[in-house]
Amino acid sequence: MVAAPDGRVVATTDLLVEGRHFRRDWSGPGDIGRKAAARNLADVAAMGARPTALLVALAAPGDLAVSWVLDLVGGIAVECSSAGAVVAGGDTSSADTVMVAITALGDLAGQAAVTRTGARPGDVVAVTGKLGAAAAGLELLTAGLGGAEPAGRGERDRALAGPDQDQAADLASLISAHRRPEPPYPAGPQAVGHGATAMIDVSDGLIADLGHVADGSGVRIELRSDLIAAAPLVPVRSLAAAAALLDRPGEHWLRWVLAGGDDHALAATFPAETGPPGGWTIIGKVAEGRGITVDGRKWSDAAGWEHFRS
Amino acid sequence: MVAAPDGRVVATTDLLVEGRHFRRDWSGPGDIGRKAAARNLADVAAMGARPTALLVALAAPGDLAVSWVLDLVGGIAVECSSAGAVVAGGDTSSADTVMVAITALGDLAGQAAVTRTGARPGDVVAVTGKLGAAAAGLELLTAGLGGAEPAGRGERDRALAGPDQDQAADLASLISAHRRPEPPYPAGPQAVGHGATAMIDVSDGLIADLGHVADGSGVRIELRSDLIAAAPLVPVRSLAAAAALLDRPGEHWLRWVLAGGDDHALAATFPAETGPPGGWTIIGKVAEGRGITVDGRKWSDAAGWEHFRS
Repeated sequence: MVAAPDGRVVATTDLLVEGRHFRRDWSGPGDIGRKAAARNLADVAAMGARPTALLVALAAPGDLAVSWVLDLVGGIAVECSSAGAVVAGGDTSSADTVMVAITALGDLAGQAAVTRTGARPGDVVAVTGKLGAAAAGLELLTAGLGGAEPAGRGERDRALAGPDQDQAADLASLISAHRRPEPPYPAGPQAVGHGATAMIDVSDGLIADLGHVADGSGVRIELRSDLIAAAPLVPVRSLAAAAALLDRPGEHWLRWVLAGGDDHALAATFPAETGPPGGWTIIGKVAEGRGITVDGRKWSDAAGWEHFRS
Repeated sequence: MVAAPDGRVVATTDLLVEGRHFRRDWSGPGDIGRKAAARNLADVAAMGARPTALLVALAAPGDLAVSWVLDLVGGIAVECSSAGAVVAGGDTSSADTVMVAITALGDLAGQAAVTRTGARPGDVVAVTGKLGAAAAGLELLTAGLGGAEPAGRGERDRALAGPDQDQAADLASLISAHRRPEPPYPAGPQAVGHGATAMIDVSDGLIADLGHVADGSGVRIELRSDLIAAAPLVPVRSLAAAAALLDRPGEHWLRWVLAGGDDHALAATFPAETGPPGGWTIIGKVAEGRGITVDGRKWSDAAGWEHFRS
């Protein structure tokens, strides 16, 4: 039983499938658990609610090591705790692949729930949380850089031994962002208290997710790359280092920021008069019209993040 | 967002995996959906709560027909509606096998939540809902009797053409009970209002599930087969017909009732002075001690229902 002092409960559910949403050779069970929990908890926060509880359904092959499952559940519990919630129930079954379905519940504490439909022309667009880091980390892993944490950290250290120390730390932070996103949970209710008109968590990419806000609200969202580059939580230096290592053009960092998913930053719109609360960065504004522009142009890669396939 | 007028929300989650909990050649998608929803809704009712909402996570192969998925979701929605709840959210993903994870939420409407731990010596044990029918239906299907509804009802009608009309209806009702359980949802909150001291839904078998109550409450539960045979919702005639068709001994009906799962009847304990409300049948009593007895003897098949494996 979960307390719902507000008399309303926010609920969201999400499914992670091995090979599609995670790979056991790229992420350890603790990180997979944290990430699975984070996706749902961030969704609750993006509605303006405080996460209260998770329910976990886990399917796994019979020959999977018990320690792997315990580490997964431990990761879920740790992430849950970091968001102020508890694991309130679960179910397990055998299956050929690992699958984790999580439902998160949250309490609105008397505030209105914020949706994707309330953005109004004149509002400012702001973000809090990392952007682009998880996508860059995934590309490093896909390119064979970064190694397999489950098999030991030595491999990663070898792979990243080429660049200098600072750069190695930058790249490691991107891989860590892929494995273990850190959504800014308290910023969700904070934004609602500050008058947010619409909010979403960035799971599929900034363009794709703000596209849902633009569509839902019947407005155009105009982003500025200079404001994005100046946001403290956009790790431009690390992204540029990753782009160099991967032989990508220098401006590739912006692609990760705009189209990369899985960071679970929060993006919201606020009335221009009051603006966002502390810790948020304005990256654009809401106008009459439709769709998303970046520096006045339509972004061509609006499809956002596609999950990798095994 | 789901209303939680009580200020507490009851939540439960459950996972169904193709080949383990259902077979696509034995049940159509509508029935699989109804059953998946029923399992969770019955769990909520067994806590004494009124089901309010379901969240559904569905994994399915990319080549699965869209109509199959729509029928599954339709079945979930129909069952949900029959319990007075709504589908409040969902997520989908591709995977090699079909997997459905459902979370159900419920409202206690100011009543105490009932658990498995409150049964006291002197209480009576009562049930409401079908018992044994789903297990007998599964054995008929396993024996190749009853045919595959997804492939058309003709096959079933042929298989059941041997017995007379009444008997055919009896057997069809058992197969239907396996495919489409009908938990007595309102009886959960009703039992709590009537002073139930412990309650559980019968998903793994009467002995196995009442065993959880006996263990959790630190008591012995003494059942009487004559009282069980007299319960209006134990379909003794149909079970006996199925036993005959399967060349089982006549007393096999009791085995289905005691050890058969998946009917989602409700079993509860009540103070002897007040007894159960209308619609419930007393089948035994609570005593000092441990474990379960039937007619004074330990039931030898206490393992209850094992899900079939593909």
